[in-house]
Amino acid sequence: MSAIRHALNTRRADDFAAWYQEVVSAADMAEESGVRGCMVIKPWGYGIWERMQRLLDARIKAAGVQNAYFPLFIPLSNFEREAAHVEGFAKEMAVVTHHRLIADGKGGLMPDPEAKLEEPLVVRPTSETIIGDAMSRWIQSWRDLPLMLNQWANVVRWEMRTRMFLRTSEFLWQEGHTAHETRDDARAETMRALEMYRAFAEEEVALPVIAGEKPENERFPGATETWSIEAMMQDGKALQAGTSHYLGTAFATAANIRFQDREGAQQFAHTTSWGVSTRMVGGLIMTHGDDDGLRVPPQVAPFQAVILPMLRGDDGDAALLDYCEGLRAQAAAQSAFGEPVRILLDRRPGKAAGKRWDWVRRGAPVIIEVGPRDMEGGKVSLLRRDRLWNEAGKPAFEAPTRDEAAQALPALLAEIHSALFTEAQARRDANIVRDITSLEGLAEFFAEDRRYPGWAEVQWSRPTGAGLDAVVEQLKALKLTFRNVPLGAAPADGPCLFTGAPAVERILVARSY
Amino acid sequence: MSAIRHALNTRRADDFAAWYQEVVSAADMAEESGVRGCMVIKPWGYGIWERMQRLLDARIKAAGVQNAYFPLFIPLSNFEREAAHVEGFAKEMAVVTHHRLIADGKGGLMPDPEAKLEEPLVVRPTSETIIGDAMSRWIQSWRDLPLMLNQWANVVRWEMRTRMFLRTSEFLWQEGHTAHETRDDARAETMRALEMYRAFAEEEVALPVIAGEKPENERFPGATETWSIEAMMQDGKALQAGTSHYLGTAFATAANIRFQDREGAQQFAHTTSWGVSTRMVGGLIMTHGDDDGLRVPPQVAPFQAVILPMLRGDDGDAALLDYCEGLRAQAAAQSAFGEPVRILLDRRPGKAAGKRWDWVRRGAPVIIEVGPRDMEGGKVSLLRRDRLWNEAGKPAFEAPTRDEAAQALPALLAEIHSALFTEAQARRDANIVRDITSLEGLAEFFAEDRRYPGWAEVQWSRPTGAGLDAVVEQLKALKLTFRNVPLGAAPADGPCLFTGAPAVERILVARSY
Repeated sequence: MSAIRHALNTRRADDFAAWYQEVVSAADMAEESGVRGCMVIKPWGYGIWERMQRLLDARIKAAGVQNAYFPLFIPLSNFEREAAHVEGFAKEMAVVTHHRLIADGKGGLMPDPEAKLEEPLVVRPTSETIIGDAMSRWIQSWRDLPLMLNQWANVVRWEMRTRMFLRTSEFLWQEGHTAHETRDDARAETMRALEMYRAFAEEEVALPVIAGEKPENERFPGATETWSIEAMMQDGKALQAGTSHYLGTAFATAANIRFQDREGAQQFAHTTSWGVSTRMVGGLIMTHGDDDGLRVPPQVAPFQAVILPMLRGDDGDAALLDYCEGLRAQAAAQSAFGEPVRILLDRRPGKAAGKRWDWVRRGAPVIIEVGPRDMEGGKVSLLRRDRLWNEAGKPAFEAPTRDEAAQALPALLAEIHSALFTEAQARRDANIVRDITSLEGLAEFFAEDRRYPGWAEVQWSRPTGAGLDAVVEQLKALKLTFRNVPLGAAPADGPCLFTGAPAVERILVARSY
Repeated sequence: MSAIRHALNTRRADDFAAWYQEVVSAADMAEESGVRGCMVIKPWGYGIWERMQRLLDARIKAAGVQNAYFPLFIPLSNFEREAAHVEGFAKEMAVVTHHRLIADGKGGLMPDPEAKLEEPLVVRPTSETIIGDAMSRWIQSWRDLPLMLNQWANVVRWEMRTRMFLRTSEFLWQEGHTAHETRDDARAETMRALEMYRAFAEEEVALPVIAGEKPENERFPGATETWSIEAMMQDGKALQAGTSHYLGTAFATAANIRFQDREGAQQFAHTTSWGVSTRMVGGLIMTHGDDDGLRVPPQVAPFQAVILPMLRGDDGDAALLDYCEGLRAQAAAQSAFGEPVRILLDRRPGKAAGKRWDWVRRGAPVIIEVGPRDMEGGKVSLLRRDRLWNEAGKPAFEAPTRDEAAQALPALLAEIHSALFTEAQARRDANIVRDITSLEGLAEFFAEDRRYPGWAEVQWSRPTGAGLDAVVEQLKALKLTFRNVPLGAAPADGPCLFTGAPAVERILVARSY
């Protein structure tokens, strides 16, 4: 039994939900704002999102997609149009009804009854309709296609039960919206965005994901096809970390996005949309966090290494800070993953041990402590956040020279990325079962007293309509959901677990966020 | 008289306001959204804002300021607090009163009366109060200071008369909010932010600005000092392009931002705030645009150069595109202003001349046309957007070899930046008069029939209270405003233009946006 005294109070194995809350707080990621359902994203948490933005944005631009910005407010009538053609239309939205405050005569303020809007405005829950409006203006001919737009924005969906990063009333995201001449072009773009998300998640966020198609009941309302990347959290639940939709011509028809084709005829465009949100930050926490706090993959870490001088508040501090600054400058001149190494010299007053555990909880990939003794020997004390403890249950410090430490950083950061990815992938792969063939088997695998069971990949006959509804009800009774039909899964070779009919493909079943 | 047929229909000299609208539209910058007071920022316009963000953000981070994100919605009660202590509190804000839509029984939707919020939420017009709340939680001791935060966000102020980029109900900005131990620290930060804005505007946006302190009547409500950078538009009006406020301890008192000082006593923090918005894009247009459209300074241009192959839709196109791709790759491998050159090969079908004028109107700094004849001679046809016409009134193409063109780009872009800055600065300096000593002189200088008069720097005695009010009324009658007291202006040496008392400093007077 380990004698390690971990940096958090809650163990993942004891109470995963409480552990998550503790990491969000202890790693300075976010906090409640006092505004219902809205969070404050603190600098360390926001810094991770900024890194995600920068890396994903480069991929978006490289694909020829152009960023633009559309209004926060959407007229109510846009939703009337959508409500008419989309079943399952969500109505929990923030509605602006007034444009002025006045004194309420009791020392407070109230919405001015004289300033009631003629048509209420909805705070965007997504921008499909307003971007569709713009596309209908901007597209006349096949020469205007493809039109590929992306927006980085805040969106609002009124949520009753919220959890930081995973489900908040306001969240940050990007939404890609593209229009194409043909079904084939639009489907190719749908798959390009999906593969972009897979590569971004795996190669930059170290988040192993399974890309696949959502079954009919999990489609974005109105979409022809919905694809997702799904990540397994350490409690075995699935998190949908990104989606890509082929919308057919339904949205183009609703928004009147028409073009003159190469033969001179009028046609509706084929559209797609795809998005990733601050939810992925929650996925990062639940994939890479451990009982000592967060572990941030190096490419999305605001700082990839931090230097903690053991300051004593005496005359020796100046020389120690000089020594540390030398290390900082040498490391910052190096390049990791094609960018300068991001390294912080933490000059704040305070005990080195206190600062060490701060940065452990925040999950800086590399922590470098420097005391007078290190300096005398020309050395530093280096700690890898992904391998925090040695066999004796002590922090696993290494003692390279200062030069060695600076020079080793790029390779070390690459190794930490791989180690985090490999660890998560191995855990994920070890927790997908593929041999369940009955509903009883499924119930047993996901039994309530089995902690963190994982996922089941099962064979099914892809029923539709009422047949699918019946299957979904069976799953619901077990608190289970379909995740997706993985790309590249083995072909079906037996009966459907649900219907007994010959299976046509394999689909993932899991509890989910 | 020039025989040039310019690319726009409206001349600046004829109707500056109409010219501005035409540039915004013809350069693909933005358009009306159909949502009252809100604009759609189109890819070229948004790309310029993204470049501004990236460059300014690097300066903000280099100063040790941390980005974070705070809720879009602010409880009404926060404003009641502010309304109580701030005179001139603006009340034109978007108010969220409901969180659900339901069918209205007439085929439409309406806010659900059952889903009325207990306390209305205001869409942030600025985040002073909600960031102040967070600061009051995050700051306990002097060791927590300075706390320096910045947010990139959308904000909403309900505007009756809007003009794209200059005054819209929703706009994008950054807002810095910092808290400090002492008045000196906070004032130093106020001045640091001001100087950051000056350097950013001049060195990166090529926007000559005058930094100085706003007089009392132009202060941010509740601020102790307000500083601004002011830019002169081509119609002689002033545009406030950025502000930096020293807030004293007033906001800290309202938000209860207290800390234990080095002696153990409780004190209120000294706070600052500073911001720059998408308004600066409007300033860029009105400073650098000409009668052929926009001219984008190279550092904020989404593409610094565009290559336009003269495609004929025949077999020769492939070789021409290869030749152009060679140029693109060679240029993109070069570095300008410390970043890779941003160059686009425009492969869209369409006539080269049509595309040329598209890019002229958008203001790409360098336009490179390549036809079969250019290719045969190993050359290209290069056009500088800042020197579009030769003496014969034709586009001033140069004909370097392809290698020369690629290699010359970094120096050429630097030269274009300087040329745009110098031109704007010379125009600005030529249009500030410093010898007006009477109200009659002022009235004459700014007479309605004098087109685009410029600014007057006048001596004044810095009256306060009712004395200042009287002066401001005099200015208002002439449709004039105080801009700022320039840093580094000559000392006063005569009587106050307004009061006749001995002047203490010089202040800029202008019409303004």
